[in-house]
Amino acid sequence: MTDAQRAADKRASVKLTTEWDAELYFKFGAARARPALDLLSRVDFTPKRIVDLGCGPGVSTQMLRQRFPEADILAVANSDEMLAEARRVLPDMRFEETDIAEWRPQEPPDLIFANSSLQWLTTHETLFPRLMSDLAEGGALAVQMADNLHEPSHALMRMIAADGPWRDRLKPIAKTRAVIGAHSDYFAWLTPLAERLDIWETTYVHPLSGVDEVVEWFRSGSLRAFLDPLDRDERVQFLERYERDLADAYDVAPDGGLLFLYPRLFLYARKGAG
Amino acid sequence: MTDAQRAADKRASVKLTTEWDAELYFKFGAARARPALDLLSRVDFTPKRIVDLGCGPGVSTQMLRQRFPEADILAVANSDEMLAEARRVLPDMRFEETDIAEWRPQEPPDLIFANSSLQWLTTHETLFPRLMSDLAEGGALAVQMADNLHEPSHALMRMIAADGPWRDRLKPIAKTRAVIGAHSDYFAWLTPLAERLDIWETTYVHPLSGVDEVVEWFRSGSLRAFLDPLDRDERVQFLERYERDLADAYDVAPDGGLLFLYPRLFLYARKGAG
Repeated sequence: MTDAQRAADKRASVKLTTEWDAELYFKFGAARARPALDLLSRVDFTPKRIVDLGCGPGVSTQMLRQRFPEADILAVANSDEMLAEARRVLPDMRFEETDIAEWRPQEPPDLIFANSSLQWLTTHETLFPRLMSDLAEGGALAVQMADNLHEPSHALMRMIAADGPWRDRLKPIAKTRAVIGAHSDYFAWLTPLAERLDIWETTYVHPLSGVDEVVEWFRSGSLRAFLDPLDRDERVQFLERYERDLADAYDVAPDGGLLFLYPRLFLYARKGAG
Repeated sequence: MTDAQRAADKRASVKLTTEWDAELYFKFGAARARPALDLLSRVDFTPKRIVDLGCGPGVSTQMLRQRFPEADILAVANSDEMLAEARRVLPDMRFEETDIAEWRPQEPPDLIFANSSLQWLTTHETLFPRLMSDLAEGGALAVQMADNLHEPSHALMRMIAADGPWRDRLKPIAKTRAVIGAHSDYFAWLTPLAERLDIWETTYVHPLSGVDEVVEWFRSGSLRAFLDPLDRDERVQFLERYERDLADAYDVAPDGGLLFLYPRLFLYARKGAG
């Protein structure tokens, strides 16, 4: 087989659509569910009214329903394929399509649960205090955010975007995702507003069978913004380079396996009873 | 008041005993309990026979009893003041005084729970596989270890020990506590022995009111080994220097407050059903 044939085969086998891909997303289902479970286990009261802010494909919504069967739960998300999936698997739940950056509750919820969503929003210094003020008295804000922008997985996406034939199109996108604050920022913003405030960072260590699994992990997530503006050949080129650079950056075992680190920042702020 | 008087007052007010101090230990009770709770929440089955390996003052033992009321629980610890406290608050529990490094079960337990104890032991590359082999089929090894040797709180203890009138006495002690492995080490040692293996690191962020609280946190723990061989004046001197160096190392707010980071490594290894 010639190199050209091999490349053609690879092109054909790589799924190059940039649509959100439920199959890919749920391939790492247990690993993706774990932080939501950890956040949920921190909730230390029984909320009556819950908002799942940025519900994605509804995994967190389902967990909230299981733990709080009596609660009134509203799941909120930007309109996209993930929300469509959530509606499909949870036909009895209440969903609201809206820009989560702008969302305000009609009635103050007891719990705002934001699992892996707020890292996409900017201006946390006003957003987080506003969410606290939206809560009912005695309520809680529970947040988990990916904190992986400095991991090789994400630094490499930005570096490849900034250095290639696509750089004029992709450089602005490399800045799309907000840099979240340090834990000291959230302490500074929320300590005056919270009766109790608990902040911690957990780095999950995922053994993956190869760097191609890192690509798969993010193809349905962070990579989409970079692949979207590219044509088919460019996508192949971007992904091939990403995979090669990942293999350099991670400590890859002889069998191809690697330990993939995923740091996440958690925050649980309980509002005073008023 | 002269400087000499001030120093004398300080000497009198500082509790300079190196005995384990229940009051000090439990001052940070909620913060100390949290990692044990997080570890416990990872246990995904109902064990019949449990060993609490390195039970300290019994906080973890009590949690295990609450979550698994039907289980046969044995709490094991080196004989010291903490074990005496555990016996006092849990008179109905079964305790065994032994060197936890040497401990072997008479009957294979379903769960070995080691909360904040194994970081004191060396040779993890043989210890951890041995603990796996001690488990019953389908059992689990659940471990949480302080991973703070590189934090200012601990690096400073060693630096002060190595540079002062006490250096000949304290330098050997600075090496007492084993350096725990990297997560990749535990993956390498346990992957062949575990059906499922989950490793994560959590850094808890504790807002403290001043560096004196860091001193209090560890006076009942890691500091004891350094203070033990010193006389009264040297202890005052060591602690004053420690407090001063902490104030330089941490980002202290105008009101004296600081965010104190405490990284901990977690490991949950489930053995195959045989």
